[in-house]
Amino acid sequence: MTSKTIDLNRYIGTIPDWPKKGILFYDIMPLIADPAAFDAAVDALCADLNESDIDCVAAIEARGFIIGTAVARKLKAGFVPIRKKGKLPGQTESITYDLEYGADTLEVQRNAIKSGAKVLMVDDLLATGGTMGAACKLIEKIGGHVARVVFLVELADLGGREKIGDYKITSILSYE
Amino acid sequence: MTSKTIDLNRYIGTIPDWPKKGILFYDIMPLIADPAAFDAAVDALCADLNESDIDCVAAIEARGFIIGTAVARKLKAGFVPIRKKGKLPGQTESITYDLEYGADTLEVQRNAIKSGAKVLMVDDLLATGGTMGAACKLIEKIGGHVARVVFLVELADLGGREKIGDYKITSILSYE
Repeated sequence: MTSKTIDLNRYIGTIPDWPKKGILFYDIMPLIADPAAFDAAVDALCADLNESDIDCVAAIEARGFIIGTAVARKLKAGFVPIRKKGKLPGQTESITYDLEYGADTLEVQRNAIKSGAKVLMVDDLLATGGTMGAACKLIEKIGGHVARVVFLVELADLGGREKIGDYKITSILSYE
Repeated sequence: MTSKTIDLNRYIGTIPDWPKKGILFYDIMPLIADPAAFDAAVDALCADLNESDIDCVAAIEARGFIIGTAVARKLKAGFVPIRKKGKLPGQTESITYDLEYGADTLEVQRNAIKSGAKVLMVDDLLATGGTMGAACKLIEKIGGHVARVVFLVELADLGGREKIGDYKITSILSYE
């Protein structure tokens, strides 16, 4: 199993002062550019999940689409995109949530999932948890059941888990 | 083979007057929500490609990330995201191209691909071809070789193929 021999930390770049001064940005691009590392990451994200545990995967644009699609394909599950306001056609449900300065809105198609569907929430990075917390509430608004929340990278000292809510939350790489 | 028995047209929604009046929008969300249909689409997109034909897959945010990631995973190829201006960290290369009204800019990380790498360009929809044409030039600017351009849906009467350039271009669903 390649997944046991690859140190995924080596495939996460760090970029100081991006997107603004004082922020150390964790760049997942080297990981997704390497098929073996990407394989290992997807295996780890799905490690204790069976296909029967999940009806669909929901992920937040845009980097979340990359990790979310890979996980959905692995679990043979459908993929449900959560997007910024005004990007999805048809009947949508939305949720507005507070950011550090201002607010943002996420949307999902209302008919994207069946009532009671077991939804795996996927994103690349857990920071403050505000966006994922809103995404989970949005999925519940359209009748979904949030079965699990998984992240590739977690910035552990930002306390994002508490902000997301009372779900099972896992991450495969964690940084202080 | 499920891919031979599924009519993928049934999984493409049509939404009139979106994103603006007079436009009939083709919605790929029903297709990606259905694992068997998504499987069949990925099989068709990769139909005459071998893993050795392709070093990596490049796709344009945001819907392109969904189709592109699925194709990259299928071909065991790395994934290279092409994003709107200011979204990618590190050293980037950019290209600005004309839209019907105004202009837009795409960026890619400069070190995303090795010189001479065989790149499969993937997007969900071929309309006027302006964005994909710019994306191909951008990949060539950083030393890549555009091996093939594939789309899930092509709006054939918009003449987008001519705008993209002299590449091998295929689509699996075509509408007039």
